[in-house]
Amino acid sequence: MTDSFASRFAKVRLDQGPLVWGLDPSPALLEAWGLGDDADGLDRFVDIVLEAAIGTVGIVKPQSAFFERHGWRGIRTLTRLLAEARSEGLLVILDVKRGDVGTTNDAYADAFIGDGAPLQADAITVHPYLGLRAMDAFVGRVARAGSCLLVVTRSSNPEGRTIQAAVGESGRTVEEQLLAEIGALNSALAPGEIGPIGAVFAPTHLEPDLDLASAHALFLAPGIGAQGATGQDVARTFATCPERVMPSASRALLSVGPDAGRMRDAAAALGAEMRQILSP
Amino acid sequence: MTDSFASRFAKVRLDQGPLVWGLDPSPALLEAWGLGDDADGLDRFVDIVLEAAIGTVGIVKPQSAFFERHGWRGIRTLTRLLAEARSEGLLVILDVKRGDVGTTNDAYADAFIGDGAPLQADAITVHPYLGLRAMDAFVGRVARAGSCLLVVTRSSNPEGRTIQAAVGESGRTVEEQLLAEIGALNSALAPGEIGPIGAVFAPTHLEPDLDLASAHALFLAPGIGAQGATGQDVARTFATCPERVMPSASRALLSVGPDAGRMRDAAAALGAEMRQILSP
Repeated sequence: MTDSFASRFAKVRLDQGPLVWGLDPSPALLEAWGLGDDADGLDRFVDIVLEAAIGTVGIVKPQSAFFERHGWRGIRTLTRLLAEARSEGLLVILDVKRGDVGTTNDAYADAFIGDGAPLQADAITVHPYLGLRAMDAFVGRVARAGSCLLVVTRSSNPEGRTIQAAVGESGRTVEEQLLAEIGALNSALAPGEIGPIGAVFAPTHLEPDLDLASAHALFLAPGIGAQGATGQDVARTFATCPERVMPSASRALLSVGPDAGRMRDAAAALGAEMRQILSP
Repeated sequence: MTDSFASRFAKVRLDQGPLVWGLDPSPALLEAWGLGDDADGLDRFVDIVLEAAIGTVGIVKPQSAFFERHGWRGIRTLTRLLAEARSEGLLVILDVKRGDVGTTNDAYADAFIGDGAPLQADAITVHPYLGLRAMDAFVGRVARAGSCLLVVTRSSNPEGRTIQAAVGESGRTVEEQLLAEIGALNSALAPGEIGPIGAVFAPTHLEPDLDLASAHALFLAPGIGAQGATGQDVARTFATCPERVMPSASRALLSVGPDAGRMRDAAAALGAEMRQILSP
């Protein structure tokens, strides 16, 4: 029996804290680090961040787009990143924001979920626009593999409200309805526990407050630090379920690189802050 | 000055008709064709379908998920497919359903849009959950490159209604609001013409009918034939703008393979039907 992602996160959280290190090798970053904006530079980026992350944080989150822009060589580098990080005991959330219907979702599961997947990750992000209930087979595979699907639910950008705050047939907003569906799936798949379906949920002050605890879910809270959200934002947004939050920082940590020691110090400081703020 | 995607589609439509051949090398298909479900089998799939498609249809639509499941080798094969198809004059819609905010969208544009992109396509599909207006920079690049963004707007699966039919602050449903935003972007980017932002729009009978013509957009209508939609569904759904429709069939054509001649016959017959049905 494979341990669930939630139980693996709970262990990592105790050992190293909840902080997620977002790995976003943008062209600007590769240039700033003097690596060159090409597949070789990307390879060196991976070496540097792995050296800094291992033993410093428990979770890393590579953003697929910054690897895809280097074509198949970038995906080869991402493959190596995933394998090396996981072999060192890091949990890996692959930020790919995929999402489709039917056999296409099966194909994405083949790519990312479970043993034998060429780009095996511990968790991936998905888009719900085609309906979370269109992902039932995907969800089942994720649960059996001890992985996690993180459903993009609430984003911090104002343009996102057009869809996320729209009101559906149930009288709930889209984001409320998603949380309810996530809660129902998790209750069915992992009764009494935190289930395999999580949510990407911005740690920003937006109305209304939603009932996060009843989703029985983990929450990926992106954009801590340089992208704008503070520790207080995180604490406030997730006040009812602090132990289920995975706060993610990218630029706040990478901007002090490429020196591995300075990045380790920054990650350790932010990690300690998040651990303290998210104590139940 | 690069020709717009819309003008290139108009030319292809006159020469070869509007039919899009969806290239979905699922594991079941690779097995049925006797190719083996691995990167080598995928390579042979590409050789066979290109031989059949060139000169038969004007547009092909590879589904990225079925290449991603073979890891970086699958992406290398997809790269070859894109380059060979485009060099033979086929328009290529890459069905990737990406979509993010800020510099992440820039990275996706780097991957797929314009000269020099490693996976250069003529059009790609995108998810709007984070807000179409969060994609303004992406949209501008697509317009300048003569490419097309096809925004997933209405899907045929019932689970999609939860989000797509939700009602936003404007009093419009999410899908209506998206069409309005697409129309506004197209009017600004290509006044008086069909603009670079299109929509993926299911050719199925769903209420309400929407005002498609005023989006000044092309429409990708997936799932013709084996996946359920008939010519009559297509004609009815797009009655106000038949010359802007790209009807796409995948299983209906691939299921008669791997014989290239039989697939050519099936594509020619369906292509003729679509051309006739979608005559203004």
